[in-house]
Amino acid sequence: MTAATGISRSRHATGELVRLDRERILHPLLPDGREDRTVLVKGEGCRVWDADGREYLDASAVLGVMQVGHGRRELAAAAAEQLGRLDYFHTWGTITNDRAIELATRLTDLAPPGLDRVFYTSGGSEGNEIALRLARYYHHRKGASGRNWVLSRHTAYHGIGYGSGSLSGSPVYQDGFGPVVPNVHFLTPPHPYQKQWYAGEDPTDFCVRELEAAIEKIGPEHIAAMIGEPVMGGYGAVVPPADYWPRVAEVLRRHGILLIFDEVVTAFGRTGRWYSAEHFGVVPDILVTAKGITSGYIPHGAVLVSEEVSEVVGAEGGFPIGFTYTGHPTACAVALANLDIIEKEGLLANATGTGAYLAAGLRSRLLGLPAVGDVRQIGLMLAVQLVSDQETGADLPGGTLRVADALREQAGILVRNNAHALIVSPPLVLDRGTADKIVDGFRFVLERLGTDGSVR
Amino acid sequence: MTAATGISRSRHATGELVRLDRERILHPLLPDGREDRTVLVKGEGCRVWDADGREYLDASAVLGVMQVGHGRRELAAAAAEQLGRLDYFHTWGTITNDRAIELATRLTDLAPPGLDRVFYTSGGSEGNEIALRLARYYHHRKGASGRNWVLSRHTAYHGIGYGSGSLSGSPVYQDGFGPVVPNVHFLTPPHPYQKQWYAGEDPTDFCVRELEAAIEKIGPEHIAAMIGEPVMGGYGAVVPPADYWPRVAEVLRRHGILLIFDEVVTAFGRTGRWYSAEHFGVVPDILVTAKGITSGYIPHGAVLVSEEVSEVVGAEGGFPIGFTYTGHPTACAVALANLDIIEKEGLLANATGTGAYLAAGLRSRLLGLPAVGDVRQIGLMLAVQLVSDQETGADLPGGTLRVADALREQAGILVRNNAHALIVSPPLVLDRGTADKIVDGFRFVLERLGTDGSVR
Repeated sequence: MTAATGISRSRHATGELVRLDRERILHPLLPDGREDRTVLVKGEGCRVWDADGREYLDASAVLGVMQVGHGRRELAAAAAEQLGRLDYFHTWGTITNDRAIELATRLTDLAPPGLDRVFYTSGGSEGNEIALRLARYYHHRKGASGRNWVLSRHTAYHGIGYGSGSLSGSPVYQDGFGPVVPNVHFLTPPHPYQKQWYAGEDPTDFCVRELEAAIEKIGPEHIAAMIGEPVMGGYGAVVPPADYWPRVAEVLRRHGILLIFDEVVTAFGRTGRWYSAEHFGVVPDILVTAKGITSGYIPHGAVLVSEEVSEVVGAEGGFPIGFTYTGHPTACAVALANLDIIEKEGLLANATGTGAYLAAGLRSRLLGLPAVGDVRQIGLMLAVQLVSDQETGADLPGGTLRVADALREQAGILVRNNAHALIVSPPLVLDRGTADKIVDGFRFVLERLGTDGSVR
Repeated sequence: MTAATGISRSRHATGELVRLDRERILHPLLPDGREDRTVLVKGEGCRVWDADGREYLDASAVLGVMQVGHGRRELAAAAAEQLGRLDYFHTWGTITNDRAIELATRLTDLAPPGLDRVFYTSGGSEGNEIALRLARYYHHRKGASGRNWVLSRHTAYHGIGYGSGSLSGSPVYQDGFGPVVPNVHFLTPPHPYQKQWYAGEDPTDFCVRELEAAIEKIGPEHIAAMIGEPVMGGYGAVVPPADYWPRVAEVLRRHGILLIFDEVVTAFGRTGRWYSAEHFGVVPDILVTAKGITSGYIPHGAVLVSEEVSEVVGAEGGFPIGFTYTGHPTACAVALANLDIIEKEGLLANATGTGAYLAAGLRSRLLGLPAVGDVRQIGLMLAVQLVSDQETGADLPGGTLRVADALREQAGILVRNNAHALIVSPPLVLDRGTADKIVDGFRFVLERLGTDGSVR
């Protein structure tokens, strides 16, 4: 080993940064041989800048995280103030702190009734690991250890820990990593655009029938929980029919199966409500949050738990495991300041209003282009699904990365992409002028996108 | 749901905070019926204060995290500065940022040679999830998907995600949560104090023989990796014999099995070195860090990976999964400032010197007491093992929580406890006067501790 290289905190030449990045960082999802890098160094509102001073429009709020936009002085101040008071302590056993208490009070006051307890994490993957553990442990403590199967859904995304990844409904989270956590069964998700998945049947009817058949086959006495994103984010803003969650919840309740809502993406205004469960009139037993809770300024998460589940898992010596950073006071202080901004600036209403405006713009300018299959939206959670065939809704060959790259290079727009869609989830502070720029940029690139996946 | 309760940021009455805590937070490890709470509100150096103004000595650096002590203005300033520049972005694909690059460069410069790449996480559990994924995926990409077993050790602690918890060698991480991740085999750890585990044989000889037998039984062609804490933290500062890791590493290398070091606790000066691997002259293929990387001010972690593993898992479309906060610029900035303090203030040397001083004090004042079995130390990683029987080293009946409670109530000392030991891992800024206070407090309580586990 050698001494530290002594890289100073001042700005380095971009070329040097790129060289060091290539040598030292193992990036997720970086195709072999890609040598280019976008070295981000500054952010403000919906904009970020790279080391060469080039400006980008952050149309995905990083990864659907940045509710209040970049560069908020209030959050920097909240972090600095708390770091100067009680920077960090855990909340194991009888130890606690005022910030963790204040945030838990606020989160549960905002939550659907019955979700009265908070278990703290540092992110969404951790949250879904704990949700799975809570559900199984609940039944175990009630003497039904055989209830350890979990129902999830194809195309679901719940994280990349082993538990959360085992619940995720795409082979990429499991192939080559196995064996993963057993006893997970995947159902068909409700995706009205993909009509062919339901063979002509009403999507909800199809899904509920399939759910009941799965319960009968596995046996309700073997099933701990069902987990689902109320609006599926990974596939791209898939809003279920209004009757889907109420009917699913009724089936689960009848069989004593817990319902876990993964609201890592959807909570804190993304869909225009504090929790997207409100859209569907359904209260889950466990509700997982992260991302928007701090707008990503500091990693944090909170799992909301019903009093019934909380009491059972907290019996005897208590719930036996915790994370190092559980109830982190600085993360909680930043979350409180972030929720303040969301409330004071009316960002829920803005998500609803500007989201509808953005969707209208995208629909009017993009639908009808050969490779654009669908534009979906709820609040400021949107997706533009790209297809090689308008009839079947089949994915573009070779994926959507080329399209995302073109948006960055040719239109200065950063978006997240998956195999099926471009994810548009801007900061909730988005104004109509910036929404217009997103629409213009998408049109500029997608009007040259062929159904073979290439941008002319 | 209701509107936010409007709890202000000002100080509340302690009673109100305690009432809200009881109602709203699901704490880990809180025994049913415990109504008392210690509401921490302030920290400075090795001390923290509760809402009633009572002072405590933080003798465990929270959970072995807080290398530079509480209340460091440099870290608050680093966080505030970065939050005002580029608060947060991910580092997926070709996206990166200057802070992530600088930290990766520094971590790999400090690391044992060959560990040239960094994969970023937000904590130790995430780090071990990824380490397990990297190891299995490495063999998968090399065409040996059958290599998916992992060797771990009884009493190991690697985290509470499903992967990391499945690697942890205590039933508490698995009982009632299963089925967990399959294909993990547990070996006997090297623990010189627990002589009876080795039936008179030299502990290293015993462990290496057992390792070779396990490899032969499972078949090396089915084993991806072995994971271990170089010094086991969960059981309490268990330092292996000097020949243990070199001999284990030699066996693994011979069979093409990767070695993962879990240095979540031991890195960044805890044992007096940047990485505790240095004590043993062994370079693993994957080295997991977290905790001390930021002293806990912001959740963060880094997995160091050899060039060989990195190249294989990054082939084709790249390593296919990443965390939301991977390469978080503010977490990286705080880590850089934290490493600066460790370096400038000579905290590695202080861990070695003051650690030895503290160990000498604890040994001279505690060994010989009826319920004190062993005092172990390396750097500022110490443990006082409590026993009901000096011959067998059997645990205290009813555990050690009563002793930790007595230390808090009667001596104002906060320590972490496990089933076997009190964990003493103070901030690395510990001075000799404060070390004396820890020794005095331990003596004051432990001289009244009976082998039945009660404090008279």
